[in-house]
Amino acid sequence: MTVTSPAGFTASGIAAGIKATGAKDLALVVNQGPQSTAAGVFTTNRVHAAPVKWSRQVLTAGALKAVVLNSGGANACTGPKGFQDTHATAEKVAQSLEIGAAEVAVCSTGLIGEFLPMDQILTGVDAAVAELSATGGDDAAVAIMTTDSVAKNVAIAGAGYQVGGIAKGAGMLAPGMATMLVVLTTDAVIDSAVADAALREACRLSFDRLDSDGAMSTNDTVLLMASGASGTEADPAEFTATLTTACLDLAKQLLADAEGATKEVAISVTGAASEADAVTVGRSVARNNLVKCALFGEDPNWGRILAAVGTTDAQFDADQLDVAVNDVWICRAGAAAEDRSKVDLTGRDVSVTIELNAGDHQATIWTNDLSHAYVHENSAYSS
Amino acid sequence: MTVTSPAGFTASGIAAGIKATGAKDLALVVNQGPQSTAAGVFTTNRVHAAPVKWSRQVLTAGALKAVVLNSGGANACTGPKGFQDTHATAEKVAQSLEIGAAEVAVCSTGLIGEFLPMDQILTGVDAAVAELSATGGDDAAVAIMTTDSVAKNVAIAGAGYQVGGIAKGAGMLAPGMATMLVVLTTDAVIDSAVADAALREACRLSFDRLDSDGAMSTNDTVLLMASGASGTEADPAEFTATLTTACLDLAKQLLADAEGATKEVAISVTGAASEADAVTVGRSVARNNLVKCALFGEDPNWGRILAAVGTTDAQFDADQLDVAVNDVWICRAGAAAEDRSKVDLTGRDVSVTIELNAGDHQATIWTNDLSHAYVHENSAYSS
Repeated sequence: MTVTSPAGFTASGIAAGIKATGAKDLALVVNQGPQSTAAGVFTTNRVHAAPVKWSRQVLTAGALKAVVLNSGGANACTGPKGFQDTHATAEKVAQSLEIGAAEVAVCSTGLIGEFLPMDQILTGVDAAVAELSATGGDDAAVAIMTTDSVAKNVAIAGAGYQVGGIAKGAGMLAPGMATMLVVLTTDAVIDSAVADAALREACRLSFDRLDSDGAMSTNDTVLLMASGASGTEADPAEFTATLTTACLDLAKQLLADAEGATKEVAISVTGAASEADAVTVGRSVARNNLVKCALFGEDPNWGRILAAVGTTDAQFDADQLDVAVNDVWICRAGAAAEDRSKVDLTGRDVSVTIELNAGDHQATIWTNDLSHAYVHENSAYSS
Repeated sequence: MTVTSPAGFTASGIAAGIKATGAKDLALVVNQGPQSTAAGVFTTNRVHAAPVKWSRQVLTAGALKAVVLNSGGANACTGPKGFQDTHATAEKVAQSLEIGAAEVAVCSTGLIGEFLPMDQILTGVDAAVAELSATGGDDAAVAIMTTDSVAKNVAIAGAGYQVGGIAKGAGMLAPGMATMLVVLTTDAVIDSAVADAALREACRLSFDRLDSDGAMSTNDTVLLMASGASGTEADPAEFTATLTTACLDLAKQLLADAEGATKEVAISVTGAASEADAVTVGRSVARNNLVKCALFGEDPNWGRILAAVGTTDAQFDADQLDVAVNDVWICRAGAAAEDRSKVDLTGRDVSVTIELNAGDHQATIWTNDLSHAYVHENSAYSS
């Protein structure tokens, strides 16, 4: 049930001394082949970390043999020296594994604006290589945690192959400042064009629809590595669907572990003139602090939801909007309908449905509430 | 120091029984002339309240003799009956003052989605008319308060005339769900074209640059009424500057009284390629929950500020960004500079300066931190 579930991968997670706590903080995932097909999706933030610059460049070749990940420091906003540190890390991994540095991706997560302790990183790479094993995925998942309270793993069976993955992130997508990192593996036989297209589509339908706190990270990275070890040539459409299922599973785990959250909220926008309109409306509601506070307070405040919808340029008539919270249609035609006291918001899972009555398209955005604990974690924890 | 400071205006504020607390909840401001020039700026939210629909229509004539304002209910998302209620309120005021209903603007603030208690409103109008006086502005300011902890008033002397005003709002601009209402008065002699242009420019440089919680109201309204009672024909440019000063004063009062805020934050973006770029960057930082939590925690987290800048499409090079917090340049050229421990964030006023090094334009956006108390007020108070 992890990144080493598909055949052809080894992994490890060790304590290199980057974190002051002594917790695991360095992970390595290695593709043993026979293929080394890969694809990557990165933060669109224009302020992005040195490892993002490096890995994006490396991925242009559509191949990877290894990825090294550290928690305890984001290596973002660290200038030329930060990039040199990423390069040196990749070189060290390449040397230890007897591969090329251009076959090694690097991911970092943690505090922005500080240099990594390179002595610990370089020594740690040796230890991580020594610990590599076909059951090391779970340790790798632990080693990339920052404010995560649990490690995130997934494995899904496709048609004759496996997809596995690990993820970290608790600030969350949109993507979150606490930085989402995801490594996906498969033993399917796919080429780099299929890998790239499948990964983009899977991310579009999963991580891109998670919007916990509207904040976009400098370090977000999703990598896919394919070993071909199953010998099964995957159908592109079927592979994309399997990969999307794996990504959605990890996305839900990120949502469940979001900093300070007490609610997991699915905002479904239906009757939209286009899928883009549905996403725009869902995202606007997901990012509205007043809606999020109301959900924390277990108040089915449809007026705040309508006000958030009204800020968008999506096609709709304000007098034709319907809103349900936990399946109770408390707003019809832009005005009060069923009694709001019928809505039970005591549970952790909340569904919000917004019917735009403007077309046949729909999309779901996942978010969290805005709680005292979110404020506490993000004011007291410098990340 | 209020809406009745300029000559030619009377006002009142009374308890009509709309609020269950028995507090003042109905205000009336009347322009006694000789002129009745007016202009209005309204929320751009596509879901907007019945009184906004009414007042926007009325203002197309560029004239107003009275505005009636109630707290205790927003009359938003109330369908055709809500609009009929607004119309009936304007008719009642018109009848009592022996003017036309098309000369009466209506503003409402409070909970979205519920009908106003029309018996109380209509009886209240009679009481408000009976209480009208040339010193009634302070009562009017009190009667429009919702979660405001203090009434907001202003009066500024122009060249031979006065500008006065009242405001309510604690959720805040961008504009805020708790709904900002502003009534500005002047005894200057101006025509409706000057009034309209001056009001739009003043709002653009004041209320539009306040972004406390990124949430836009269904009811926000800023009205300007000119009586001409001073006999002084105002120079348009000088009048615009005076009006802007009055609006900035009220905007700062709104900022100071924002729900749950512990910090008043001025985000100055300098070196921008355009003023629009500067506003875009400032707004992105102002709306970033992680930045706002860090300021609440008195953490000069420049990495989060850079990450917020990076989400925009403004012109800049990520390696050329400088950031100062309370005048300490903790980030230069996109990386750490002066020691962050030099930044003292214990005070209520915070300045953030972001130098884009991309041009000669600048803008300042004002915002607040994100505190436990903000979450508490907006989860426990149904507005």
